[in-house]
Amino acid sequence: MKITLLDGQVKEFKQPMTVLAIAESIAVSLKKNCIGAVINNKKIVPNGAVLSKDCKLEIITERHALYKTAINYTAKVLTTFALKTVFPEGYPMMPDDDLTEHEFSAYFKSPKGIKFEDLKKIEEIANSFIGLGYDFKYFYPGDANEAEYMKQVKADGCVNVDTKVDMNSKDYIKMPTVLVRDVIFLARNALLPSTKSLFKIELTQLSGLQLEDDASGEITYRIHGIAETSETRLNQLKAELEEIKASDHKFIAKNLEIYHLDPIIGAGLPIWLPNGAILKQEIKKYLMEKEFDYDFIQIETPVIGTSQLYKISGHWDHYREDMFAPMALPKEEMVLKPMSCPHHISVYNYKQRSYKDLPLRFAEHALQHRYESSGSLTGLERVRAMELTDSHIFVRPNQVKVEFARCFNLIQEVLATFNIKIDYLSLSLRDPKNKEKYFDDDKMWNHAEAELEEVLKEMKLDYKKMPGEAAFYGPKLDIQARTAIGHEITVSTIQLDFLLPQKFELAFINALGEKERPIMIHRGLIGTYERFIAVLLEQTKGVLPLWCAPKQVEIIPVNEELNAAYADEVWKALKQAKIRAGIDNRDERLSYKIRDAQVKKIPFQLVLGKKEQEEKTVTYRKYGSEEQITVSLTEFIKILTNKIINKTYD
Amino acid sequence: MKITLLDGQVKEFKQPMTVLAIAESIAVSLKKNCIGAVINNKKIVPNGAVLSKDCKLEIITERHALYKTAINYTAKVLTTFALKTVFPEGYPMMPDDDLTEHEFSAYFKSPKGIKFEDLKKIEEIANSFIGLGYDFKYFYPGDANEAEYMKQVKADGCVNVDTKVDMNSKDYIKMPTVLVRDVIFLARNALLPSTKSLFKIELTQLSGLQLEDDASGEITYRIHGIAETSETRLNQLKAELEEIKASDHKFIAKNLEIYHLDPIIGAGLPIWLPNGAILKQEIKKYLMEKEFDYDFIQIETPVIGTSQLYKISGHWDHYREDMFAPMALPKEEMVLKPMSCPHHISVYNYKQRSYKDLPLRFAEHALQHRYESSGSLTGLERVRAMELTDSHIFVRPNQVKVEFARCFNLIQEVLATFNIKIDYLSLSLRDPKNKEKYFDDDKMWNHAEAELEEVLKEMKLDYKKMPGEAAFYGPKLDIQARTAIGHEITVSTIQLDFLLPQKFELAFINALGEKERPIMIHRGLIGTYERFIAVLLEQTKGVLPLWCAPKQVEIIPVNEELNAAYADEVWKALKQAKIRAGIDNRDERLSYKIRDAQVKKIPFQLVLGKKEQEEKTVTYRKYGSEEQITVSLTEFIKILTNKIINKTYD
Repeated sequence: MKITLLDGQVKEFKQPMTVLAIAESIAVSLKKNCIGAVINNKKIVPNGAVLSKDCKLEIITERHALYKTAINYTAKVLTTFALKTVFPEGYPMMPDDDLTEHEFSAYFKSPKGIKFEDLKKIEEIANSFIGLGYDFKYFYPGDANEAEYMKQVKADGCVNVDTKVDMNSKDYIKMPTVLVRDVIFLARNALLPSTKSLFKIELTQLSGLQLEDDASGEITYRIHGIAETSETRLNQLKAELEEIKASDHKFIAKNLEIYHLDPIIGAGLPIWLPNGAILKQEIKKYLMEKEFDYDFIQIETPVIGTSQLYKISGHWDHYREDMFAPMALPKEEMVLKPMSCPHHISVYNYKQRSYKDLPLRFAEHALQHRYESSGSLTGLERVRAMELTDSHIFVRPNQVKVEFARCFNLIQEVLATFNIKIDYLSLSLRDPKNKEKYFDDDKMWNHAEAELEEVLKEMKLDYKKMPGEAAFYGPKLDIQARTAIGHEITVSTIQLDFLLPQKFELAFINALGEKERPIMIHRGLIGTYERFIAVLLEQTKGVLPLWCAPKQVEIIPVNEELNAAYADEVWKALKQAKIRAGIDNRDERLSYKIRDAQVKKIPFQLVLGKKEQEEKTVTYRKYGSEEQITVSLTEFIKILTNKIINKTYD
Repeated sequence: MKITLLDGQVKEFKQPMTVLAIAESIAVSLKKNCIGAVINNKKIVPNGAVLSKDCKLEIITERHALYKTAINYTAKVLTTFALKTVFPEGYPMMPDDDLTEHEFSAYFKSPKGIKFEDLKKIEEIANSFIGLGYDFKYFYPGDANEAEYMKQVKADGCVNVDTKVDMNSKDYIKMPTVLVRDVIFLARNALLPSTKSLFKIELTQLSGLQLEDDASGEITYRIHGIAETSETRLNQLKAELEEIKASDHKFIAKNLEIYHLDPIIGAGLPIWLPNGAILKQEIKKYLMEKEFDYDFIQIETPVIGTSQLYKISGHWDHYREDMFAPMALPKEEMVLKPMSCPHHISVYNYKQRSYKDLPLRFAEHALQHRYESSGSLTGLERVRAMELTDSHIFVRPNQVKVEFARCFNLIQEVLATFNIKIDYLSLSLRDPKNKEKYFDDDKMWNHAEAELEEVLKEMKLDYKKMPGEAAFYGPKLDIQARTAIGHEITVSTIQLDFLLPQKFELAFINALGEKERPIMIHRGLIGTYERFIAVLLEQTKGVLPLWCAPKQVEIIPVNEELNAAYADEVWKALKQAKIRAGIDNRDERLSYKIRDAQVKKIPFQLVLGKKEQEEKTVTYRKYGSEEQITVSLTEFIKILTNKIINKTYD
């Protein structure tokens, strides 16, 4: 067996060896520091893993980037044992591991259920294991330690909790089992040599989920936690996590009460809470106004369709895996629509169209459903129900260029309103060497691609050509944007389609009175509301511009009783002006309420005391500013109304 | 056999008799005028029907109200024969009959398909049969005419098209078969004695449908037609039909291009065409503004849910037949939501609520799906996908009264805007004698019912008490309205619910810090958009108020070339002012365009010629007025904007 080290050195051994023994053979000092290895740049194994075939090996020590996963894995194991101690009738689950740099998760089934309040006790016990200082010693059949271990196992009445252990693996790596307290488990990652190397485990969160390969249908509890080897490092980790949370839409959304997920309603189906519904509806109102300006026509189509419809469109053959399963009805098979194209085609086709009717710009903010795997669902970013800012434009062949430019201008204007800059354009073209992949019409392709390039040049836009990246049905332009925090995203897209018009036999009567086929343009304005709002929350860190902020003004009476009437008067005046305000009349101190309005990122807070009441003024403070300004109520409403109309960011 | 006549006279016969023979036995003159009879106030039979048991019998002659159904049935039969002549490979279908006073339908399967253009030929042939003057002679096994008929059948190579003939029926009525030309059919209704009694058949419409009890899945064509016995009567019938169409939302909607149904998308799933989408969205905008005024909070919830959710809510047990079939997904069973209550409960439950948070008024214009039988689907009135102006209000027990009044005021204000008057209120109470039918809490019921009555009295509202009409979960108030054309409809509803809060274990923390159960109020503002728009179209006969009219202004240039630039200038100015206008630039005469704008019920039409262009004015004509008024463009925009803001009807 030849072991190739990181520096290219090759070591040869005559028999299978553990990682630790190999480390020792390289340098005696390594025996102390080695906690595992990376095999063939891929698999992380603990010290006790036995290698039997040629491979590349990279020793993991404290200085290695993967040391953190060993910390997390160790914490995960101790947490699992603690779970088993608190819920002896439960048992751990071992899905493919997802140790991040920051957190770990333990998975556990518990017939009794696990409540958030239980985390404290589990955490205590897990931390008590640290103090007891168990060393991890590895074991597998045939191992020199076998006899000693088996004795101990017997004495402790050991419970093998990990049902996936395969002692007779034919792999070239034999993963060892480990005995800790009275439990044997399969070590799937590098482990710290002793529990004492840990400083502390903190359990942070509890969630329930259904594991992908679990046919039982039962809930698996997921216990999230963090751990580190020293107090300094733990504090540093927490600071990093705070930073991440501050720009993770899931945390921002939770703080602002934007959406909510409920397993009994269904995974990946966001429920828009009042604040989220306002945000979404304000954005929609704005987009629809812009679409009116650009002569788009709104339509509304059903969220379901017969499977027959998607057989004609081709989605059934090419896209069925991403669709929800159909409903078996007595006379038809209906499915949730994954895309609205065929529905919009039905509107085009419902009457005869003349060349004078084109371009026909149908827009719909359309709900669609896609059956994403439950593991990939992430906040608002990856969901199963989404509302797409969709459009299908039916044009004569000589209108493509102008329409493309119009779509682009609309997109640009809208993104600018949200402070999102277009980074570059990805022009996806046909691969001329691989024509079979594409809808077969050379003339059409050459013409369309040339036109798209021409319009981009005329508009003096930079773009990257991506040959071979076109859709089957035509070339497309993806609009890559960069958010204020530097993330690159595909927000918008404009695509030409020659194929669906053919499949659905679309036609218009041209100036000569003959039937001619229109071209379809698919346009996504800001993609889906779900993903766009995720982007917006991350980019603004939750400090939304006034016009779309759910609550625009928080009214804080200095004295709940004395100033209540005036607070109410102000609230009514604001409501009259269509300004969304609330009165904070909780039994809390003034300073707490002021701080809380900041935490909730409310654009304006009004403190109303005796002086304001007597003079019919308001004292306002803008979010992020320390300055307090007193103006008349009328003046305040004027200031806000102006900002709202102009959609300013200041 | 005793036959009881209409005047109470009883005739006795020793053997089975045909209707015609009985008629003759009553009065010889009846033999000539009788075309069939009504048996036991229910079944209509032709002259040839044989009665064998005691029954009541009512002879049908020309003066009888049901004579019209005999005209229609005769026309239907001739149309069926004509269909068989034009499409010999096709065959008629005989679903339960639906002869209306006005129209008849023939049902036919045709492997070749039937096109609208074919109706002309079918109509010609059907009318040629009238001229040939076939008498209807009845026949059945054992009948005296059997031999004669069988000879003729043989000679003509007769085809029995009606597969449902049961010669050996054990019923006390033997329905006869009839031979017309070379076809035998089962006579299911009274028939005119001779085809010559008809004046004319006109085929008006063609549609395709799937019959309820037809497992083949094939389309049955439905040919609609009208027929009468004289030219005067036919013209009268047409005038009546015009009147009906003028106030039938299906015809109005077709003319205004409001919605469209497409079988390949699915039955009962209206697609909102551009005009319909504008109408719906304008109404929605208005309703949401009103809801903002009344402190409702919008939320948005998924259109699907797990079946588990509806098992908890009880819908699964009591409502499953009205739901779409579930989707079988790998790990869950999802259904289209038939109601949003459980979804709104999820929003209530997502965090702990305090008594200070109540009342919580969640509103959602929520899409829901119900699997209505395909036979009951009617335009926008009875659909499978509908958007309900829904709300669930969570209140403390002592807030019921105030909230009820608030809901009522909102409903009243909204209905007034649409010129719909509340006719009476139906207060549905528990039946005190049948308590098992209701949620068991005497105190709660007594309290709630008393409160509702009290608030109605305070508001000085008339109401009808309906004991035994309450929902299982609580008493309710249905708001019965009368449209301008006199139809009574249930538009809005306010319902108390004690049960769902219990099933979902809802709670709030009261002023004493204890958990207390809230009461739910279900509120439907204007019911569903679909049904409300059907009502609105019928009530206005399509002359929608300016603010929600899809196209508000039609611009008609006098000379398409010379006035094009000015027409465009006016259009842009209107668009800038958010007024929905269009330019009619079709190759048609001015007078045609002016008439067409009237037909399309467009509130304002502008005729722009040389004078207007030079003076920057517009000459407008309001719908329904002959007066032409010339004003400056600015003035015109001001007039319209005022009308739109004030939602006036004038």
